[in-house]
Amino acid sequence: MKKAVVLLSGGLDSTTCLAIAKAQGFEPYALSFDYGQRLRSELNAAKLIAKKMGAIEHRIFELGVGALQGSALTDSNIAIPEDAPSADSIPVTYVPARNTIFLSIALGWAEVLGAHDIFIGVSAVDFSNYPDCRPEYIAAFEKMANLATKAGVEGQHFTIHTPIIHLNKADTVKTGIKLGVDYSLTVTCYQADEDGRACGRCHSCHFREKGFREAGVADPTRYQS
Amino acid sequence: MKKAVVLLSGGLDSTTCLAIAKAQGFEPYALSFDYGQRLRSELNAAKLIAKKMGAIEHRIFELGVGALQGSALTDSNIAIPEDAPSADSIPVTYVPARNTIFLSIALGWAEVLGAHDIFIGVSAVDFSNYPDCRPEYIAAFEKMANLATKAGVEGQHFTIHTPIIHLNKADTVKTGIKLGVDYSLTVTCYQADEDGRACGRCHSCHFREKGFREAGVADPTRYQS
Repeated sequence: MKKAVVLLSGGLDSTTCLAIAKAQGFEPYALSFDYGQRLRSELNAAKLIAKKMGAIEHRIFELGVGALQGSALTDSNIAIPEDAPSADSIPVTYVPARNTIFLSIALGWAEVLGAHDIFIGVSAVDFSNYPDCRPEYIAAFEKMANLATKAGVEGQHFTIHTPIIHLNKADTVKTGIKLGVDYSLTVTCYQADEDGRACGRCHSCHFREKGFREAGVADPTRYQS
Repeated sequence: MKKAVVLLSGGLDSTTCLAIAKAQGFEPYALSFDYGQRLRSELNAAKLIAKKMGAIEHRIFELGVGALQGSALTDSNIAIPEDAPSADSIPVTYVPARNTIFLSIALGWAEVLGAHDIFIGVSAVDFSNYPDCRPEYIAAFEKMANLATKAGVEGQHFTIHTPIIHLNKADTVKTGIKLGVDYSLTVTCYQADEDGRACGRCHSCHFREKGFREAGVADPTRYQS
């Protein structure tokens, strides 16, 4: 079996990606990041999901506090928006260079493992305003990765897999359900509480709830009230 | 004045880059990494250099122990080579995805600072076998960075400056001397001691010594014997 590094936040999208990587025959090595994010319960979810879904190894990589800045997700002085998401501007939940930092560290780990496949659960559909969730960004990262590395230069092509990049939340949920994903384990909310219960008001909750509704699947999310 | 993030290891090349960034009129924000490298004295050198050369801020970013693996520089089980460097293979001192991880974190910091310029002291001449020191790699990273970021998408072009990429060590030394660099502060050796004294035998010492000799500049390096 081929090894793959799977970025796993503990949310709905990355958990679906882990299931897809397994279904495609990869041995998954799960990678999460502790960057002082508000959302501590997301990391706890990632641990449980990695274990229950049979990751060969789950590495939680600590980034120094303040590594990722300039975002409502990492700066308690910036409010998490609860109004309807805007269609044409980059949200305040954008974290500068986040996916680039995550993918770079995944790339380093992959090369050490002898893996040439990396899965990331970005979607260009629901949150299309994040620049680092777009296909052209992923393609540019993959090209760079193959120039950056010994493995790439020696002809072992690195592939950045984005299996849900063109799926909306409903289709992502449908895909995951077919693969047996237990979404009650996942935490997506931007301001979940310590037990992983969702606020039901932030953009992330909005898209998640809509996804289950449109997929015709009972929403297993635990809400705060 | 425009801000620039300057990657600063404490070695000869990155210190020269810092001097060049200043000479080009940038306000330098120095960025170093603590990744459990063997070479602790290099970080101490970086601190002193950042201070003496007037960096606006010097951030030492801690990467989790074991972040960078699979290299003689980070794994004490792999010997630092002391024979003549090979002309056509990637050396064991190659660290998987190192420059990609460093540049990604620099990119995140730059975006938060409102800087659009990043300096990195790679050279494709002396150590031409490191894949992530080549112009085509840097060009691919820059392209990716402009697709990855809010600033890039909004039209503020990020530039990855590699002012010594085509310089050999002698020309790098000549450039730095003209700009007043005090090379006695820098630590380049792969196995320097706690006081920053060089071994005089590793590839890095080899190129450094040759550089001063060919530049006709007295070698200020402190050696262990």
